[in-house]
Amino acid sequence: MSRQQRHALDETLRQAPQPSGPVSVERMREGFAHFMSGFPISAGVTRTPVELGHRPAVLVEPTGERRSGTILYFHGGSFSLGSPETAMALTAHLVERSGVRALSLDYRLAPEHPFPAGLDDGLAAYRGLLDDGIDSASIVFVGDSAGGGLTVTTCVAAQEAGLPMPAGLVAFSPGLDHTRSGASMFTKEGIDPLFTREAMARTGELYLGGRNPAQPLLAPAILADLTGFPPILLQVGTNELLLDDAVRLAERARNAEVDVILDTVAHVPHVFPAFVGTIDEADEAIDRAALFITQRLRNR
Amino acid sequence: MSRQQRHALDETLRQAPQPSGPVSVERMREGFAHFMSGFPISAGVTRTPVELGHRPAVLVEPTGERRSGTILYFHGGSFSLGSPETAMALTAHLVERSGVRALSLDYRLAPEHPFPAGLDDGLAAYRGLLDDGIDSASIVFVGDSAGGGLTVTTCVAAQEAGLPMPAGLVAFSPGLDHTRSGASMFTKEGIDPLFTREAMARTGELYLGGRNPAQPLLAPAILADLTGFPPILLQVGTNELLLDDAVRLAERARNAEVDVILDTVAHVPHVFPAFVGTIDEADEAIDRAALFITQRLRNR
Repeated sequence: MSRQQRHALDETLRQAPQPSGPVSVERMREGFAHFMSGFPISAGVTRTPVELGHRPAVLVEPTGERRSGTILYFHGGSFSLGSPETAMALTAHLVERSGVRALSLDYRLAPEHPFPAGLDDGLAAYRGLLDDGIDSASIVFVGDSAGGGLTVTTCVAAQEAGLPMPAGLVAFSPGLDHTRSGASMFTKEGIDPLFTREAMARTGELYLGGRNPAQPLLAPAILADLTGFPPILLQVGTNELLLDDAVRLAERARNAEVDVILDTVAHVPHVFPAFVGTIDEADEAIDRAALFITQRLRNR
Repeated sequence: MSRQQRHALDETLRQAPQPSGPVSVERMREGFAHFMSGFPISAGVTRTPVELGHRPAVLVEPTGERRSGTILYFHGGSFSLGSPETAMALTAHLVERSGVRALSLDYRLAPEHPFPAGLDDGLAAYRGLLDDGIDSASIVFVGDSAGGGLTVTTCVAAQEAGLPMPAGLVAFSPGLDHTRSGASMFTKEGIDPLFTREAMARTGELYLGGRNPAQPLLAPAILADLTGFPPILLQVGTNELLLDDAVRLAERARNAEVDVILDTVAHVPHVFPAFVGTIDEADEAIDRAALFITQRLRNR
């Protein structure tokens, strides 16, 4: 059954209207918000606007069974699109299934705020949690796409700042290499139903703002020292330009003696766990992520 | 806490008495059985001797909650040592936590029965289950070490024989390359607390019986075509000579569009999930494996 589900999803995504030329960031943001609003948000959570590290955030809490701990969530959107709301369906599923509350950060976006603004906001948010007396061992960083990248780079920045490590990282289809040197950037061109190299280069430039991408905080999959990192779960589809970002980060983690689970699913698109109700693989991946999160929080 | 657990386990294993010269297979079998008898077997299962594909086997059933489905279990022991009993602690934990019964196969061992005897027994056991009217989609192959290798090669052999694929494979620290070409065969020498290249070469020769190891059924990590395989879970420690057997199989699986989870844990030894009660990582790994098994059986 699921083979058909994967195929049908791929077809649906390919039929989405594509812009015929360059579009403004505002139009891209509207289009992204519209697309992401198609993902139904679980009724099993409440959402409350809060402030975190001087930025807006959304506190997402389960209405059912609760566990102690906090997910610090980083939404996707190529560092220039999106908000806690655009990732809310995925965030809510994780909160509901793990029983762990999330704080989803509305970090600053490019091009108005290029690198390292979003990362600075991520670090300030983590520092804000610690300053509130929350134990680092009760915090798991979770994010999708660009936000998956932020789980890693925020952790690098926290380590550089002398802060204690969180309990774990979960990254769905993370973007981890702004040099775009992964083999899948070439081998999956045309196979990835959502992205092209050209489109990724455009949004990448907005975030880079002219900076050299060959640095650990912009290309952690090839340049970051992960020594001392907490356990990492990476979930990624084989149809993705970004596949090898996750593959290479997993290799770096293993070489740095970091526990890492590289969870790859065939023939599924970018951030496939978001497609709950459309493909069985999404439900199953979220259950695996929820188990990972509760295991990381169990040992504190 | 767990960092200390991993270190203490490593120290304990290094202090185990090592044979000062070549020992007979009989002595190795006795020593292995003695070592493995130190792992306590859960009271949450019953064990019944049965026959499967004209070989002895042990039916392991949960006394608590049950789910439908069957684990076909392949014990470890370098293809020349061990039995369902030596792997029973690990098998029983999986059965208890997943609720799925297991049939653990007493396949023929080298040097009395070199390659492909054990593999032939694995295929006969699977065929036996199918002949009994059991749906292939309700069967998961699970194994440790050499038995982890058999999960993969039995699947290759089943595919060649035109049999339907099982629902999934779980391999703990599988041996998947009798050419011993993995980088970890060299980089982890001295780090692996249990094995040396020399010791692996000795037992490997018993299984090979003079055959060329460069063939898919003896080196699946580098030579098997995994196209059409069911989802695979690989759990392996970073202190293992065999680390890269799992790493390379995962890469082959991804390239063949097979769902694969490569679950690596740092600073733990060969078949670390067996050390339930000694390291937290073992308990957690078994829970992840049990979730994987139930997810594979859910979709039938």
